[in-house]
Amino acid sequence: MANEHTLIRKYFAPLAEAFPGSLNLTDDAAILDIPAGQQLVVTKDAISEGIHYLAGTDPAMIAKKLLRTNLSDLAAMGATPYCYFLAMALPSPLSEDFIRRFAEGLAEDQKEFGISLAGGDTIATNGAPVFSLTAHGLVPQGAALRRNGAQTGDAIYVSGTLGDAALGLHRYQVTGGRWQEDDYLMQRYLLPQPRLELGVQLRGQAMSCIDISDGLLADMGHICDASNVGAEISLEHIPLSDAAKKMLEASPELWPLIYSGGDDYELLFTLPEGEKPPAGTTKIGKIIAGSGVKLLHEGKEVPVQKKGYSH
Amino acid sequence: MANEHTLIRKYFAPLAEAFPGSLNLTDDAAILDIPAGQQLVVTKDAISEGIHYLAGTDPAMIAKKLLRTNLSDLAAMGATPYCYFLAMALPSPLSEDFIRRFAEGLAEDQKEFGISLAGGDTIATNGAPVFSLTAHGLVPQGAALRRNGAQTGDAIYVSGTLGDAALGLHRYQVTGGRWQEDDYLMQRYLLPQPRLELGVQLRGQAMSCIDISDGLLADMGHICDASNVGAEISLEHIPLSDAAKKMLEASPELWPLIYSGGDDYELLFTLPEGEKPPAGTTKIGKIIAGSGVKLLHEGKEVPVQKKGYSH
Repeated sequence: MANEHTLIRKYFAPLAEAFPGSLNLTDDAAILDIPAGQQLVVTKDAISEGIHYLAGTDPAMIAKKLLRTNLSDLAAMGATPYCYFLAMALPSPLSEDFIRRFAEGLAEDQKEFGISLAGGDTIATNGAPVFSLTAHGLVPQGAALRRNGAQTGDAIYVSGTLGDAALGLHRYQVTGGRWQEDDYLMQRYLLPQPRLELGVQLRGQAMSCIDISDGLLADMGHICDASNVGAEISLEHIPLSDAAKKMLEASPELWPLIYSGGDDYELLFTLPEGEKPPAGTTKIGKIIAGSGVKLLHEGKEVPVQKKGYSH
Repeated sequence: MANEHTLIRKYFAPLAEAFPGSLNLTDDAAILDIPAGQQLVVTKDAISEGIHYLAGTDPAMIAKKLLRTNLSDLAAMGATPYCYFLAMALPSPLSEDFIRRFAEGLAEDQKEFGISLAGGDTIATNGAPVFSLTAHGLVPQGAALRRNGAQTGDAIYVSGTLGDAALGLHRYQVTGGRWQEDDYLMQRYLLPQPRLELGVQLRGQAMSCIDISDGLLADMGHICDASNVGAEISLEHIPLSDAAKKMLEASPELWPLIYSGGDDYELLFTLPEGEKPPAGTTKIGKIIAGSGVKLLHEGKEVPVQKKGYSH
């Protein structure tokens, strides 16, 4: 790509200048110093146009969602953000407007979440744009949260409210419309909030933790599989936003989106029974012996068609 | 992607099982321990079908070239391979054959270069396949090679032979043909050799170092820019393979590919004048005051049209 170096220097070097290890993006690689007593937590998520976002989406929003979904993985491990690497495959010739808005989105979120660009690559593609981000976080030695520590008897908690993102996407799709920035549910789909502070709080407290990207039941299943336990979740205890309640009253057939819809990026975790939960979290069930996830409504099992959300 | 988890478990989990920090690819992120006194060197390169390789290329070869170009960046910094993360954007439905061959290629190169998969992401794309790899290496604190240390008077060295990859690609293109596995020049294009041992040898010795991916003159220019110096390179001292010599005899018009063709992945470095160079390297010029790269033939400047190779 002829002008790759020029564009990188202009729009991406400023995103890396606060991070000495980036070497201002002028070398073959970045050099990271890991503070003594810390471990590095690394995650990599990718997105592509037409699958994870629609053509025409504001590039700043694409950038933010990509960064935030990666930060959500760091949150689920109890890590704090450190730096990230970005690869972009874009149609040639590059659109400077696209690059500029993408970088603006990153700049805003770098400030909000205290993370810095450290390196990357920009390439041409003959097809749809693809973005891949590798996020690096830090966690004290041995303190990372895992999926595999849930114990029979643990209480199951979730942060925030569930189903908002799936309802927001649904509304967007059925209205065939535009993003409405003041629509709370669409906002929740477009701009997830990585629960970084909660992840840090849960260090040394939670027995297991995961972020909800595939959907409540699917991600609960991941914890159960990794921990060799089962789970019971009470439908009536799942926390809902006012906007979600209103939409469900009008369209009760959308209820399955609450437990099977993806993209909420809330934390799902287990605590030993009786342990005091952090503020802003809700108890929704308990870990049981066995395997698999049961959804209960007033004590009776609810049949579930689809346990997960596939992008 | 419905069967992402199944395919990952089947073909990629085995690539990660020797690396404890990968958590067998079952968690939200990997956890890396950085040995005391070491720094982490991180690089990220991406490739796309139709730009960096042709549709129909053996997936094992695609995988190897992607891994090797990233390893070459580690070599240029004097780092030893540690682990890598892989993102793949592939058309849906996934081709299991493709995934299997891709993983086989990675498995072979993991053994050859002593590196392990630690995490990644597989997504669907509506367009051309795109692959992004983030490679992590280790280097003793402060020992990383850089581009910015060249000093006036330094001798300029290069490893191996130059131009082979560009001549190999040229031959492939003009013959419109198939890869010929026994064709040395095509082999050099397809399967670059990251100069990892040389990079380690050069720690504490080389004043500056880069790997030749954009072409000799372009990459020499990167060192000059970063170091605020100029360079003179003698055309007649550039090391050539027998296969390249033969091809140049028949087609002398291809000479520019020797100094402007990319993808050789040899190391280009500078040593203080008089310093003994490592075996297998050739002196091709010297660092001078000023800026820019001059190509000389028997002392006279050669006019150069195109200084770099753009994918």
